Amino acid sequence: MSKKTKPWGGRFREATNEQVERFTASLHYDRRLFRYDIDGSIAHAKMLAHQDIITQEESGAIVKGLKGILKDIEEGRFTFSDEDEDIHMAVEKALIEKIGEVGGKLHTGRSRNDQVALSVRMYAREEIRQIGVALERLKNTLAGLARAEKSTIVPGYTHLQKAQPVLLGHYFLAYWEMFHRDADRLNDCLHRVNRMPLGAAALAGTSLPIDRSFVARLLRFPQVTANSMDTVSDRDYVAEIIFVLALIMMHMSRLCEDMILWSTDEFRYLEISDAFTTGSSIMPQKKNPDVAELIRGKTGRVYGALTTILTILKGLPMTYNRDLQEDKEPLFDAIDTVKASLDILAGMLEGVTFNRDRMKAEAGLGYSTATDAAEYLVRRGVPFREAHGIIGRLVAYCIGAKRTLSEITLEEYRRFHPAFDEDIFLVISVESSVNARESAGGTAEKNILKKLSEIEEI
Amino acid sequence: MSKKTKPWGGRFREATNEQVERFTASLHYDRRLFRYDIDGSIAHAKMLAHQDIITQEESGAIVKGLKGILKDIEEGRFTFSDEDEDIHMAVEKALIEKIGEVGGKLHTGRSRNDQVALSVRMYAREEIRQIGVALERLKNTLAGLARAEKSTIVPGYTHLQKAQPVLLGHYFLAYWEMFHRDADRLNDCLHRVNRMPLGAAALAGTSLPIDRSFVARLLRFPQVTANSMDTVSDRDYVAEIIFVLALIMMHMSRLCEDMILWSTDEFRYLEISDAFTTGSSIMPQKKNPDVAELIRGKTGRVYGALTTILTILKGLPMTYNRDLQEDKEPLFDAIDTVKASLDILAGMLEGVTFNRDRMKAEAGLGYSTATDAAEYLVRRGVPFREAHGIIGRLVAYCIGAKRTLSEITLEEYRRFHPAFDEDIFLVISVESSVNARESAGGTAEKNILKKLSEIEEI
Amino acid sequence: MSKKTKPWGGRFREATNEQVERFTASLHYDRRLFRYDIDGSIAHAKMLAHQDIITQEESGAIVKGLKGILKDIEEGRFTFSDEDEDIHMAVEKALIEKIGEVGGKLHTGRSRNDQVALSVRMYAREEIRQIGVALERLKNTLAGLARAEKSTIVPGYTHLQKAQPVLLGHYFLAYWEMFHRDADRLNDCLHRVNRMPLGAAALAGTSLPIDRSFVARLLRFPQVTANSMDTVSDRDYVAEIIFVLALIMMHMSRLCEDMILWSTDEFRYLEISDAFTTGSSIMPQKKNPDVAELIRGKTGRVYGALTTILTILKGLPMTYNRDLQEDKEPLFDAIDTVKASLDILAGMLEGVTFNRDRMKAEAGLGYSTATDAAEYLVRRGVPFREAHGIIGRLVAYCIGAKRTLSEITLEEYRRFHPAFDEDIFLVISVESSVNARESAGGTAEKNILKKLSEIEEI
Amino acid sequence: MSKKTKPWGGRFREATNEQVERFTASLHYDRRLFRYDIDGSIAHAKMLAHQDIITQEESGAIVKGLKGILKDIEEGRFTFSDEDEDIHMAVEKALIEKIGEVGGKLHTGRSRNDQVALSVRMYAREEIRQIGVALERLKNTLAGLARAEKSTIVPGYTHLQKAQPVLLGHYFLAYWEMFHRDADRLNDCLHRVNRMPLGAAALAGTSLPIDRSFVARLLRFPQVTANSMDTVSDRDYVAEIIFVLALIMMHMSRLCEDMILWSTDEFRYLEISDAFTTGSSIMPQKKNPDVAELIRGKTGRVYGALTTILTILKGLPMTYNRDLQEDKEPLFDAIDTVKASLDILAGMLEGVTFNRDRMKAEAGLGYSTATDAAEYLVRRGVPFREAHGIIGRLVAYCIGAKRTLSEITLEEYRRFHPAFDEDIFLVISVESSVNARESAGGTAEKNILKKLSEIEEI
Repeated sequence: MSKKTKPWGGRFREATNEQVERFTASLHYDRRLFRYDIDGSIAHAKMLAHQDIITQEESGAIVKGLKGILKDIEEGRFTFSDEDEDIHMAVEKALIEKIGEVGGKLHTGRSRNDQVALSVRMYAREEIRQIGVALERLKNTLAGLARAEKSTIVPGYTHLQKAQPVLLGHYFLAYWEMFHRDADRLNDCLHRVNRMPLGAAALAGTSLPIDRSFVARLLRFPQVTANSMDTVSDRDYVAEIIFVLALIMMHMSRLCEDMILWSTDEFRYLEISDAFTTGSSIMPQKKNPDVAELIRGKTGRVYGALTTILTILKGLPMTYNRDLQEDKEPLFDAIDTVKASLDILAGMLEGVTFNRDRMKAEAGLGYSTATDAAEYLVRRGVPFREAHGIIGRLVAYCIGAKRTLSEITLEEYRRFHPAFDEDIFLVISVESSVNARESAGGTAEKNILKKLSEIEEI
Repeated sequence: MSKKTKPWGGRFREATNEQVERFTASLHYDRRLFRYDIDGSIAHAKMLAHQDIITQEESGAIVKGLKGILKDIEEGRFTFSDEDEDIHMAVEKALIEKIGEVGGKLHTGRSRNDQVALSVRMYAREEIRQIGVALERLKNTLAGLARAEKSTIVPGYTHLQKAQPVLLGHYFLAYWEMFHRDADRLNDCLHRVNRMPLGAAALAGTSLPIDRSFVARLLRFPQVTANSMDTVSDRDYVAEIIFVLALIMMHMSRLCEDMILWSTDEFRYLEISDAFTTGSSIMPQKKNPDVAELIRGKTGRVYGALTTILTILKGLPMTYNRDLQEDKEPLFDAIDTVKASLDILAGMLEGVTFNRDRMKAEAGLGYSTATDAAEYLVRRGVPFREAHGIIGRLVAYCIGAKRTLSEITLEEYRRFHPAFDEDIFLVISVESSVNARESAGGTAEKNILKKLSEIEEI
Repeated sequence: MSKKTKPWGGRFREATNEQVERFTASLHYDRRLFRYDIDGSIAHAKMLAHQDIITQEESGAIVKGLKGILKDIEEGRFTFSDEDEDIHMAVEKALIEKIGEVGGKLHTGRSRNDQVALSVRMYAREEIRQIGVALERLKNTLAGLARAEKSTIVPGYTHLQKAQPVLLGHYFLAYWEMFHRDADRLNDCLHRVNRMPLGAAALAGTSLPIDRSFVARLLRFPQVTANSMDTVSDRDYVAEIIFVLALIMMHMSRLCEDMILWSTDEFRYLEISDAFTTGSSIMPQKKNPDVAELIRGKTGRVYGALTTILTILKGLPMTYNRDLQEDKEPLFDAIDTVKASLDILAGMLEGVTFNRDRMKAEAGLGYSTATDAAEYLVRRGVPFREAHGIIGRLVAYCIGAKRTLSEITLEEYRRFHPAFDEDIFLVISVESSVNARESAGGTAEKNILKKLSEIEEI
Repeated sequence: MSKKTKPWGGRFREATNEQVERFTASLHYDRRLFRYDIDGSIAHAKMLAHQDIITQEESGAIVKGLKGILKDIEEGRFTFSDEDEDIHMAVEKALIEKIGEVGGKLHTGRSRNDQVALSVRMYAREEIRQIGVALERLKNTLAGLARAEKSTIVPGYTHLQKAQPVLLGHYFLAYWEMFHRDADRLNDCLHRVNRMPLGAAALAGTSLPIDRSFVARLLRFPQVTANSMDTVSDRDYVAEIIFVLALIMMHMSRLCEDMILWSTDEFRYLEISDAFTTGSSIMPQKKNPDVAELIRGKTGRVYGALTTILTILKGLPMTYNRDLQEDKEPLFDAIDTVKASLDILAGMLEGVTFNRDRMKAEAGLGYSTATDAAEYLVRRGVPFREAHGIIGRLVAYCIGAKRTLSEITLEEYRRFHPAFDEDIFLVISVESSVNARESAGGTAEKNILKKLSEIEEI
């Protein structure tokens, strides 16, 4: 672009270096904001007329022009030129080409600084909504699995060692809780995203009699930002969204880790459907949980985006600095990654087949109900620490004898403590173990059912 | 510790390697949780009695013993032994030593997994409160500065280039907004921290008839956690607190950057008091803004803590894994860093002396009211883009002539556009410029006063 | 792609979910590896024939086919299909289409795991070379500036406070050192990148009589990787390259920070040419150092890429896991970012105009030669700590009297210490100060000239 | 400390705020540098005398005083006072107390900026050496395991699915390669650490006739740093060390992940000795791989340290800024973490018991030698892609028939391809499979032995 045609070219005597133009351009990635830029400009134009800063005719021409451009873009007729720095310049230039000089009135009382902030906030608001929907779908999938597997017994792990049997439904509801907290965080974050920045202008506000609340109402923002300097330099909302997305990825990475482990030949708790696995170019027998692995790997990508935005913001002087332009790509990439991952994870989970018999058999191994035996003694008055020691020695005895807790006799039990009675054999069954854990939040089936009915009522 | 005395030593045949003991110990840093561990245990013991799991006498003895230990620690009489793995073991061992066998009943119906979670949540809750207070102090300092400097004119910067004059009070209120959002985020996060985890036991709940809500009421938690597996593996709250702290540090780093710049010999907008600067070991004339630099540098520390916790959590299988023990040091360090930084920054700001004359003089340089001149033309019907171009050429002319916008004549103005009139000279004064920006959130003094009165009403 | 046509589709009964295909595909970004994939395959085919695993005719046909595909891609005639998972599959499929069944012999004795590693290592090797060239250009630019500004005096800063005068040439040579270390690191890293992985096959090597050294020679690798399992799971070289790039960005961010500061109205030490700055959409007088700001901001991007790859690798079990596919985008983005930034920074520096008079005048302010006065006393036998204290009080006296070190009389000097003599006034001139610092590495002009002649000899 | 006694207190009129003193102090963590500070000062004093800047007597007194202080610290007689900012001030103050005024001559021709850099470089150099030793021990442990398990067959995994059988010795040698590269990187990094910074003074060098090479020789530095401004602002070596440590942790995290998986009840490939595991406070049967988990978790800690130092350095203006003080704690913590982890990991590995029978049995499952069958066909002239497809269908057939590749008849084989002969049954045995992989770097036992003899020769 020659210096003449740059909207800010007035006092410049040298043309922008071409390489500089490429280096500073953002059009190739910010063009996805076109709809928000145009909607924001339409609201701005209407406000300018409402405040008699421009005439109704001028405003009408501008709005019509902008709507035409929106349609052109949507229908693929709009030519993006690399010479336009960003989507905002591209649209404004097109407007002036389309409707003439009057288009030059659109930029009255605003600056690119607040205009960019408006587009990104509108974009972020919509994406938060979409991610909320995707989270809801995943939560529903998990609740559905919880209902279907409400009585399926599976080993519960700590340190990846079998600890105590749990119900598979309870396990899926644990993830439900995580994604529910994520939805909560997303919602909290939305309140800070959903503030209307236009009118901050370059940094100080404007001397023209604009009405920011009018624009906010048209664009359905519940409030306007409070301080013009803060408005143009604030990227908290970008960092906050990316952080919430990082936690969503982290939760997915944990679920995927479990799915990968559980679909190994060694665990064999479940099989992921062919449609969600891939094969090997050299080993014909392989069936790899690629989707789960990729989601786990993509966690790194969103963590990286968080590092990026935090690094950018650190130590920046007030107010706007061009560094802030670099906020968009990590935001876009994190959003795209999370949306795709949430969708595909829900799909993958819906196609999983469980090997219930094996899960239940494994849940009984490894002396997994030893805690039940200890609590049995506690109910008979033995102090917990003592009971814990007794059962520890009993387990050591069983290991030595290569027998399980069900395979030793009552007499042998009594050698360790006289309080044992015949009913100990009931207590140490896995079914009894899981259903005895009725304390609030415990794994018992009745807790699962209670939670599911609460979920349905939401 | 010999294997005999380890609370979990029952089935082990080899003593723990000493190096392993050191490697796995956390007592040297988690001892700061002592009060929360003891308060949590007291509530747990009361609940056990209330539910008839232990007797009132047993509970009374335990509570008395625990209170004694609390006093011992507070008064420096408690000996921490490196052999105790963590504060929880240290307290329980001391309890048994103090009150005998009955102390072994305390651990009934809980596990270290939920016990640790309880202590950390109670600690975090209290620290969030304290950080809230420190944020409030800083916000008050900023509001005080805003009131004091409500009519002080200072250059407003974008790209670190003088852009438009603003009021210094407006500048400080921009930071007030940032820290206000931080307080908001902290509060949102508190809702997720403030859930009572005890009773999740190892991962599955317990078969003993505990009452988790009873414990929650005693410890003033508004709700209990919902799922036992989630409860023992959840560290979202650690990550979330650290993230909020990272943003607080980021905001402080920006303010410190400004203070560092403004106290350079080149800017000379302010002087930090001797009490908050240090000298040089070799250059006697130096007066360095060390405090501001250190706060800026410590931002890296809190960002690092965030990377740490996110890395730990990525891809962990369910439920508890020992990796999670590594959550505490980054949390403690981030909290200590932020508290100390908030306090000292408020102190530093309170002792700053402003060079108001220089600020105002500088605010008028660099054609900083050119936008006012452009908006002047807009008000006379010139489309903004055209006005912008006209003023651009006018500025280029002034630069060439080495004159300011006040130093050229009306006639010269009119060469650029006939709409200029005598009142242009009023418009381009810095006082006029700042006070003309009356749009919501703009820098005008009346906006500052409005905001300050809103703040006072909070 | 129907399951029939997937190269690994033999045992699969369900087609891959379409969404999964998109989610797992890497063709849209790894297609840039086409040349390396093809060159690697050509070498592999030649080796297969050399080892009589395939015939010379077969090898000839494959090589010819591959060269044809290379030409097709280079000349834009190649159609990339979204159905092909990655560039490697795309090329192999095209080969089979072009030359028939015999194309299926190319994949003998290799796997995609080692094939991907080969392409990425060849790509990385070439990019390291190109970045080396760009670093060299930047270092030359800096050396050129050092020569041009070898006697330009500028304030040297610590804590962003004027500390001691230095020569601008010395300053540019400081950056030369940083980028020289970067080049060093890049070279060290190259030794680890430059190892030939092909022949590791899926993870265990192959039972076919391949000759890995033959392939290495053809592709100019000085050695082959040593262990097949390590080979397919190693991404150290990706992390290491990105780390080196992160330091390069960090160094550029510091230089840009200085350029931004020095081009402020307050410092006014230099002016960046119009071609490397941009204007404002609302403030016609602005000339913003956008290029420097963007480079500084893009540092966050490369730091983010480092977080990404490190997160991906943490805790991955052996050997290859699909998570590793996520290594390429951060690598590509970091490389592209650094190359563009190095180039444009060199360009920007070449067009900077220095305000030498102002720099020199400023260098004399702030009692910047106080250390020279202290060292003067040391040379007259005063212990350094005492001399430091004396000069400290002298500076305080001058500040009180609003005079510089040259503006007080010898008599006044002598009130602080009798050892002062007339020659003190020579010592405290900025010219004398910089040129007195002749110790190795000190700022004296003769040191600059010595370093420049060493650089020329390299 | 009252302003009077501050070494830089000359011109200050207000005492340092006490809180500021605490905030800026580093003595509580940098006191570990005492030996390096003192050794560096001794060399500096000797040089000052050698250059006739101070007398031999003065130098002698200083050296004697410093040696006394070293002994005091080593023997626990030295009192560290919180008032001393850092170890350097503490030692200098003690020196002056011990030997009087002449102690004030030590700081001649140096500054704290270069003095700190010297201590940290000396410390880092020694720690790199120690980490090199620890790496060597771990590599020896791995080589020992490789020798012991050179014929132990274990499943090789990709995507955590059984892929092909490998030898356990080969597996351990893969990790040997990783730690060998780490040692390599550490060594490369040492070259950049091992440069003598003293004499850069505050930033510009000194006017006193010091001899930096003399100091370098005394302290066994092969070279001096080249540019004084770079010297005091360079922290590349800190970042580079931490990065290398981060990769070491990453490698350990992967090995630990494998150990954790392999010691699950589901894999049961190995048992970690009691001395390196811990039990559960509630589940008496548990034996948890805590050490491996903690190492995996501590990876986050070192990644965090890397984020910290990179964040600190980003965008800092030249030269020294107080932010740089924050470099030490992440460096110290990363070094301590890696040293402790390397040691304990070697110890843990030395006590592992392998379940060889189970490993071998599992290695034969999952059609793990299918690739061997495909390569068998290739050797009989079938194009690889076709062979891959044939074996894919054969595996599907076996799965349907619930039989292994050894359990189907030759006739059945021939239904898939006529080239199959009786010797196919030899080829698909796991022993044959591993030992057939004789290509360079392949898993065959003879390759393991070759590598081990190369290692012994190093």
